[in-house]
Amino acid sequence: MKPLVGVELKRFVKAYRRTHPVTRQVAALLQSVAYPANVGSIFRLAEAAAMRQLILTGITPLPTNATVAKVARFKMDRVPWRYCDDPVMAVQQLRQEGYHVVALELTEQAVPYHLYAYPQQTCLVVGHEDHGVTKATLAACDGAVFLPMYGKGLSLNVHVALSIVVYHIMHTAT
Amino acid sequence: MKPLVGVELKRFVKAYRRTHPVTRQVAALLQSVAYPANVGSIFRLAEAAAMRQLILTGITPLPTNATVAKVARFKMDRVPWRYCDDPVMAVQQLRQEGYHVVALELTEQAVPYHLYAYPQQTCLVVGHEDHGVTKATLAACDGAVFLPMYGKGLSLNVHVALSIVVYHIMHTAT
Repeated sequence: MKPLVGVELKRFVKAYRRTHPVTRQVAALLQSVAYPANVGSIFRLAEAAAMRQLILTGITPLPTNATVAKVARFKMDRVPWRYCDDPVMAVQQLRQEGYHVVALELTEQAVPYHLYAYPQQTCLVVGHEDHGVTKATLAACDGAVFLPMYGKGLSLNVHVALSIVVYHIMHTAT
Repeated sequence: MKPLVGVELKRFVKAYRRTHPVTRQVAALLQSVAYPANVGSIFRLAEAAAMRQLILTGITPLPTNATVAKVARFKMDRVPWRYCDDPVMAVQQLRQEGYHVVALELTEQAVPYHLYAYPQQTCLVVGHEDHGVTKATLAACDGAVFLPMYGKGLSLNVHVALSIVVYHIMHTAT
């Protein structure tokens, strides 16, 4: 075994992508995700996972921010995104577009992420690094899921948590 | 729905942890992961997922590094770890301890991560941010898995990739 590099690597990735087209439509709504590095990582994820769109709301920095662009490896142009000031209005619009909207947040009613039945077209909502998804936004969502935590830490980084759930929906969700 | 905070959040997380004990034994070997922020994020993951141990090898910075500690949220002491200069020797030692050792790397023989049959006791191997897992380390491993990529980007960040696979093994692997 040797790691694939250069042209061989590109060919391998391309061949896999061609033979395994993405079947789920996954989007994400960023409700005031504050740190540019986190937003950049989410753009990198969205490009890698061929996510349908990102909706940036509130104080979320835009891809015009230099840190967002750098961490996204300058692939922001390959991700459909839009900005909407009000997250609640954005959730309502997504539902009109046919999305089932699920918050990634610990609430009394939240379900472990791997036990949730995600419809074909799902938008995940992530919140501010310190304050999470607000009560108003949660009220507009169809449901909530959480990542089980087995230590003293009460959370993972927002872009890590989102990556885990997006890849789960794409490959192992039933 | 409202987000859980403070004591309520701690209680919720603790109750879930108590009723859903970790059944898989998952470890990770860091083969010259160079950036302290990535190593810190991996410690944060390891603490959150109650991973059995981290083995740091080569040029991987130790938790004594200030950035590693900060990004790990100063929870390094809750993660069993050791340093071993030579990754190949470390892999051999892990196998003697009963671990099945799987590299997270694109090779000709690599299997999509969600289709791999992970034994009860699995150690994942991640490599350098630019150079990946070396040929020598790969040769010592039992297998290799990769994360499907559906865009132009050829990789995700190393700690993001590891997080996706660790949570998969814990919750959705068969």
